[in-house]
Order: sequence, then C-alpha cells, then structure tokens
Amino acid sequence: MQDFTFYSPTKFAFGRDAETRCGELVKEFGGSRVLIHYGGGSAVRSGLIDRVKKSLDDAGVSYVELGGVHPNPLDEMVYTGIDLCRAENVDFIVAVGGGSTIDSAKAIALGTLYDGDFWDFYSGAAAPSKALPVGTVLTIAAAGSEGSGDSVITKKSTMEKRGTGGECIRPKFSVLNPALTQTLPAYQTACGVTDIMAHVFERYFTNTKNVETTDRLCEAVLTAMKNEAPKVIADPNDYEARANIMWAGMVAHNNIVGVGRDQDWNSHGIEHELSGLYDCAHGAGLAVIMPAWMTYVMKHDVMRFAQVAVRVWGCDMDYANPEATALAGIKAFRTFLRGIGMPINFEELGAKVEDIPALVEKFGIGDGKTGGFVNLDRNDIAAIYKLAAEATL
Amino acid sequence: MQDFTFYSPTKFAFGRDAETRCGELVKEFGGSRVLIHYGGGSAVRSGLIDRVKKSLDDAGVSYVELGGVHPNPLDEMVYTGIDLCRAENVDFIVAVGGGSTIDSAKAIALGTLYDGDFWDFYSGAAAPSKALPVGTVLTIAAAGSEGSGDSVITKKSTMEKRGTGGECIRPKFSVLNPALTQTLPAYQTACGVTDIMAHVFERYFTNTKNVETTDRLCEAVLTAMKNEAPKVIADPNDYEARANIMWAGMVAHNNIVGVGRDQDWNSHGIEHELSGLYDCAHGAGLAVIMPAWMTYVMKHDVMRFAQVAVRVWGCDMDYANPEATALAGIKAFRTFLRGIGMPINFEELGAKVEDIPALVEKFGIGDGKTGGFVNLDRNDIAAIYKLAAEATL
Repeated sequence: MQDFTFYSPTKFAFGRDAETRCGELVKEFGGSRVLIHYGGGSAVRSGLIDRVKKSLDDAGVSYVELGGVHPNPLDEMVYTGIDLCRAENVDFIVAVGGGSTIDSAKAIALGTLYDGDFWDFYSGAAAPSKALPVGTVLTIAAAGSEGSGDSVITKKSTMEKRGTGGECIRPKFSVLNPALTQTLPAYQTACGVTDIMAHVFERYFTNTKNVETTDRLCEAVLTAMKNEAPKVIADPNDYEARANIMWAGMVAHNNIVGVGRDQDWNSHGIEHELSGLYDCAHGAGLAVIMPAWMTYVMKHDVMRFAQVAVRVWGCDMDYANPEATALAGIKAFRTFLRGIGMPINFEELGAKVEDIPALVEKFGIGDGKTGGFVNLDRNDIAAIYKLAAEATL
Repeated sequence: MQDFTFYSPTKFAFGRDAETRCGELVKEFGGSRVLIHYGGGSAVRSGLIDRVKKSLDDAGVSYVELGGVHPNPLDEMVYTGIDLCRAENVDFIVAVGGGSTIDSAKAIALGTLYDGDFWDFYSGAAAPSKALPVGTVLTIAAAGSEGSGDSVITKKSTMEKRGTGGECIRPKFSVLNPALTQTLPAYQTACGVTDIMAHVFERYFTNTKNVETTDRLCEAVLTAMKNEAPKVIADPNDYEARANIMWAGMVAHNNIVGVGRDQDWNSHGIEHELSGLYDCAHGAGLAVIMPAWMTYVMKHDVMRFAQVAVRVWGCDMDYANPEATALAGIKAFRTFLRGIGMPINFEELGAKVEDIPALVEKFGIGDGKTGGFVNLDRNDIAAIYKLAAEATL
C-alpha cells in the first residue's frame, strides 16, 4: 500500500425530503447570499427549486439563481456565473442537479475568486487554492461530484473537455434524496450506474500490491451495483434500490475505496473525447469504452481481471486458463451494460469509426504516454477506440 | 434504507513516518499550545513521543505532556488532564496511542471547556456540544476512535464503563502509520482485529431491509480482516497487512459502512462489563461475547447469519437447512478467533461464571430492554454470559 492523505469533510444529508435542510446547511457553513445553480427546466417544473428556495427563505438566506447548465457543462455558462456572483456579492453556491451542474458550480466558485481566466485551472496553467464554498442538492447518482474535489468543463470554442481538482472545491454539504432520482429516465439512470462502476474500476485496476481492504471495498460497490441497477431499470420508483445506488455513487468517488494505490483513469480520458465530440452522455460513452479498454489491457494482469470476474460477476475460475475467466468477466460486464440499456459499440452510441483519428488527435498526448495501470501511447488509444467501435456481445 | 446524516471531517495522514506531519497538522487546524497525551512508556522508549515533539518544535508549536493513560482509561486521569489543560492554556490535544489514549484525550477535551463534572457526558446528564480540538497519532488498529466522535471512560470508584459521543470530539486529524503497530504483541494485535470486526458486526446485524450497498461494504471489511489478520500474527513486521488492517479499522467505525440502518451494539455493552470488572482487553472480551451473542440471537434472522457465513466465511449454503449454515458461520468465526490467539470462553479470558449475576447487575438495564437488532432483557443478557462462559469450538 502507498502512503496517502484522505480528507472527505463533506456533510451528507441523506433521505426523503433532505432538500428541506438546504437553508440550515448553508447557514451552518457560513453562507448568507446564495447562487442557486441548476440545469434544465425539470428541477423547476418538479418544484424542487421552489423547495430549495423555501428552505433558504426559512433560514433567512437570500439568493439569486442561474439555470440552464448543459450536460457536459460549458465554459460560457461559467463566465456568466462568475459575473453574476461578483455583481450580486454571492458568498455560497448551491448546485441543484447532477455532476454537470455541480461541476459548473465548482468552476464558478473557483473563477469568482480568481483574477485571471478560470480556464487556467482546467488547462493546467493554475492550481486551485481558493473558491467560494459550494453545496449540492443531487438529482442524479453518477458522477460522485457531490463528494469529490473534482470538476470537468468543456470549452465550447474547441470542444475540449478538461478537468481540475482541489480541496477548495469539495462540497461543504451535499443533500442526497434518492426520491429526487425517481423521475430520471431509465437511460440516464443506467448511465449513472455505469459511471459509478467506472469510478471503481479506474481505482481497482492498479499495479499496487497488497491492497486487500480497498480491493474488497471496490468489489463491494461493484457487486451492489450489479444487483441494484436492474431493480431500478425494472421499477423506476424503487426508492430502496435508488438509495443504495446513490450512496454507492458517493462511496465510489470520494476515494475511500481508492486510497493507497495507483489508479488508471485512461477510460475516463478516452471517453471524454467521445462526449466532447458527440455530446453523448458520459456514462454511455464509458459503457462503450471501458470494456474495450479492459480487453486491450487485460494481459497486463490477467489474474486481477480473473479476480473481478469471479468475485463480482460470479464467473467460475478456470484454473487451467485464467485468461478465459478474465475474458468471461469482461463479457459479463458488457452483458450487464446491455441489460440495463447501455450502448456497447460506436454505432449504438452514435459515434463514427472514421472519427477515430480526430478523437486520438483531441486526446492530445502527442508522443507521450498516459495511464496509471497500463501506460498507453496514441497507437494504443486508437486501438481501444477501434475495439470499442466494433464491440459485440 | 433509513434517512441519515454522515459527516466524517477527519483528515487522515496515512503511511510511513506520517507522525512527522503532526506539527503541520496541528497548525492547519488552529492549534498553538498542545497537550501531548499518551499511555505507557513504550511510546517514549520507542522514540515516538520525541518524534512528535520534534514535529511540533519544527512547526513552532509549544506543548506540555501527560503520560500514563491506562487501558480502559480512568476518570482520574481525565481530571488530571483537565486541570493541566486549564493551567497551561492548552488549545489542542494530541493523543499518541490507541483507543484508550484517544478516548481519554476526548474526555479531557470535553471537560476542559465544561463548568461541571466531565462525567456528566458519560452518565448521560449532559450532551457534548463543545470541546478542545483533538488530533491523534494512532499506535493500535482497533477502536476506530481515530475517526469517530465516540469515547468510553471507566469511573474508578465504581468500575462503571460508560460512553459518550458527539461531533465536537471527532478528531480533526489522525496520523496512521502502520509501522508504529509492528511492535505490538500478537495478542494485542489480535484484540484489535477482533474489535474492528465487532464494529462491523454491530452494524451488520440489523432489521433494516434493502441495505445492499452497506451490507457489501461490511462484508468487504470482514473478509479483508479474515485474510490479513493471520498474516500479522505469523509475521508481526508485515507492514502491508498492518496497513490493510489499519485502514479497515477506520472504515469499520466512522460509520460509512453503517449508515441508514438500525445497529445492535449489545455485544459491546455486554463486553464492557467484562473489561470493566476484570480489566481484560476489550477485544479479548468481544472474542468471548460476540459469538455467544450470535448463537443466542441467531434465530431472529437465520438468513442474515447464513448470508455472512457464506459471503465472509466461505461456508456452503445448506438450502435445506439454513440454520446449519448460520451455525457453521458462527463456528468459523470462533475458529478464526482461536486461530489468531483470542480466548473464546470465560476461563480463557480469566472471567468467572459465578460473577454473572454481578455482571448483569452492572449492565444496569433493570427491567428494561436494549439492543437494535434483538431487544434483550436482563435474563437474555445472563443467558449470553452463560453461553460465553461455557463456549467451546
């Protein structure tokens, strides 16, 4: 196990009607003038924004609002938000939505207190050190942004999708009410589950030895998702299954299951180019990319892939041929994804094989290499896109 | 799943030499005048206290010290500490030791800012609301006190062992260096593992339905302990196994694996009377009590006991007779405990069957009932002590 620091000081209010605690939580963490940041009209139409406003009113906290965050959130909204926060002397941002809205809120929180262009944090030109405090009311279990110090934004002019991270943008509080996710279409729900599982897999595939405790915790989250996801696809109103998925989404990404080990994260990078170019859902892109990545890198550590095949997917261990077990695990993952309605290849995703050179170009590693589990160059990335393009069950 | 709030804002510095970060961490959390609180002489003899002092010196933080905390920490030490903190204007307490030292530090932190008798918090006459900030340098993976808001103290005059809890006594930071535990005798190491597993079992046995995610996380910690504990018993210098156990000890008790469900905690209460009366190690007492409690309450939910037998202990499920599987799981737990050197009955622990009436009396529920999984009365408690007294493999 490697040395590490773990710090997850977000306060989670979990359960039915938890959004009514929003005002009290803003005050607890020192806010007095809030930007309510949200996405499409559904949060308004469902009455959720009104409930958040009422909670702030009841706590004597004033607010302004900014809706319209796009999935794969754009830099232009961030600039608008920064201007608004400065003009209105906002001292706390409450994001009401999923990962996109939360990530947009984090970018605004960074940019408001920064003299330069907020994009500096995403291009790597600057490191986050201070930001307005952020709270969240989560409406999609997926990104884990409600418990993480990460944010991903897309620059509209170039469609570059880039991330940043820092303690200062970790939410002070997050409201997790599983009932808010019951109105999500099955497709988005499944995208969320895929993202949660991908967050675990990115941590699970590691070269670090002797990480039994976090290995087992990773397998626990994966197994729970394997069992709970089909329930919500079958019955969108299954509060209990949604609650299990929502808590797993946080656990999967606040790093409690990933400490002390190298992590990979190539699948996320490879996927970002897909959702950047085609504006598809991140989870759907991961469903296409991650099994292809697994197939491509499997021989790097066949026994680790066999391990997850047996422990999570319930495959029989083929002791004479562990590679067969590893492959059976990848197939089981893809079958699971298809079963919850996810695409498994380019055609189903709406991506084009002829775009692969452009995707690799945008991936932008030049002659370099990337990835914590298997270090890949641009030819490897192209090969993974090709495997993903042509995948079948 | 039940509604819950989860808040775990402790910063964990994990790994080799992590104690050298002590001074920097105290300053980060606003301390300038520290009480270094520790137990026996081993922390001094090993040079650990000197390393902590050097780290504080390097950070320009001054300190006083108070050693001699007893396992099953006593109220008299707490009074001494409170007087010292007041006399020396201490604004931060660093506990260097295991759960006993940390719990003593938490009690001093509470009492220093309280006008009345600190015991009020433990007798239930007052609820914790403010305390000096506490940091820890952990030397035993066991109690989970490094990441929890709990504290247990024994009143010497009556040998009553009582607990309290509150956010204000949750450590601001905890230094977890697995190498510090390498000098622990095998017996104490095994006691720690038993305590960690007991913290999970107290949460695992629940009447709350639909808790798949936390069930799987609980099983993950239990499985990791089943696999890692024998390694450290065989080789006390196995840093990697100690690291896995140390992280599991935190995860087992900061409640991330126990949210959203009723929990039991009778085994802890029943054990507290043993270690209160005989001054035995808490973990050793749990090794005797917990399997007895399991045997006594098993019929309340045979399938849950069968589940853990299969998933953690690797028992075959006897579909025609689930009770046989449940019993096989309890037997496997006891066999595991014996294998790591734990006592499994009164004689091995040094307890006496004729003391059972006194133990039940001290347990102090009168005509009431207690326990979140199975509600037990004084006759049940006596029966469990009797089962524990006579246990064999």
